[in-house]
Amino acid sequence: MEFSSKLLEQAVYEMSQLPGIGKRTALRLVLHLLQQPEAQTEQLTEALTGLRTGIKFCKNCHNISDTELCEICANPNRESAIVCVVEDVRDVMAIENTSQYRGHYHVLGGKISPLDGIGPQDLTIYSLIEKVKSGAIEEIIFALSSTMEGDTTNFYIYRQLEGLNVKTSTIARGIAVGDELEFADEVTLGRSILNRIPFENSLKH
Amino acid sequence: MEFSSKLLEQAVYEMSQLPGIGKRTALRLVLHLLQQPEAQTEQLTEALTGLRTGIKFCKNCHNISDTELCEICANPNRESAIVCVVEDVRDVMAIENTSQYRGHYHVLGGKISPLDGIGPQDLTIYSLIEKVKSGAIEEIIFALSSTMEGDTTNFYIYRQLEGLNVKTSTIARGIAVGDELEFADEVTLGRSILNRIPFENSLKH
Repeated sequence: MEFSSKLLEQAVYEMSQLPGIGKRTALRLVLHLLQQPEAQTEQLTEALTGLRTGIKFCKNCHNISDTELCEICANPNRESAIVCVVEDVRDVMAIENTSQYRGHYHVLGGKISPLDGIGPQDLTIYSLIEKVKSGAIEEIIFALSSTMEGDTTNFYIYRQLEGLNVKTSTIARGIAVGDELEFADEVTLGRSILNRIPFENSLKH
Repeated sequence: MEFSSKLLEQAVYEMSQLPGIGKRTALRLVLHLLQQPEAQTEQLTEALTGLRTGIKFCKNCHNISDTELCEICANPNRESAIVCVVEDVRDVMAIENTSQYRGHYHVLGGKISPLDGIGPQDLTIYSLIEKVKSGAIEEIIFALSSTMEGDTTNFYIYRQLEGLNVKTSTIARGIAVGDELEFADEVTLGRSILNRIPFENSLKH
């Protein structure tokens, strides 16, 4: 791409550094900002700068928070003895949306992924182990994505927890509610049969 | 979406104001920036601010430029008597990429679109008419998108030019090079027959 302006080229280049944004999309976004009032660009850049410099992570669960202790950890009505281990803030938001969970979370900040150079020390795993060692936790629920990296991370943490007095569980894998059986992949379908539950239990929800 | 942080919510909101970026994509982009070094966010916001505050438009053709007169208008080897009318800087870049055009441009900054509240006075049409009236222009080439708004804009400018001593032309519409006839829409195919050219002319390229 040949740009008529260095300023334009620079803005497009920086925008195209974002994941999933190619040069053409970046140019479209930047030209859109140029057509809008200057205030919109200001608000965008201020919000991004504000977030990047002012961001805090909850000292208990490592979730993104504006306060030292996030709203969930600070809420006395939540069961602090149950901890759901998730990858990032999006998973916390997704589980909170179900209104089915009343425990705490532990945000790892990623998954173990040697290919991307992410090892256990880059995540908040040790802080989780310390929490368990302190004896205040009864159950750990693994809720990572069902991918190779997710399974590796689950298993790594599981091994670290051996010998510690804590129950571990993982969220159920199976056919999604509303899905047709014939379109389910065989691994999921197989697990849903192996991990079948008493029919009466399914009536409770 | 329930956010655990106001800063995060604000950044996601501002990001989702960009065209084609929904709340989910905005959250993904913002979380990506959080995982990158702080310098990347700084560079992005500085580039956007720099562009928005420092942007100049060529006083002759209204293209985005870092200088008063853009490189094309300042180039003495280009034919200033031929002016190609385009919508925005992307079209200039696209035509420049073909290396087939040696004239000047005139960037309208949009198309007449009553539904979006864009009238002739919001574009640089009058400055084009003035240029023509000054007598320095021999040919105007319309190169707007072949949409209702593009055709309306073409026609509006065409009417304004009536009585002025200037040749007008429009870029050829037809079957794209490499395309199969059977998949072309009938309007395009019809135009390509009506506007057929002597076979010898097609051998020149």
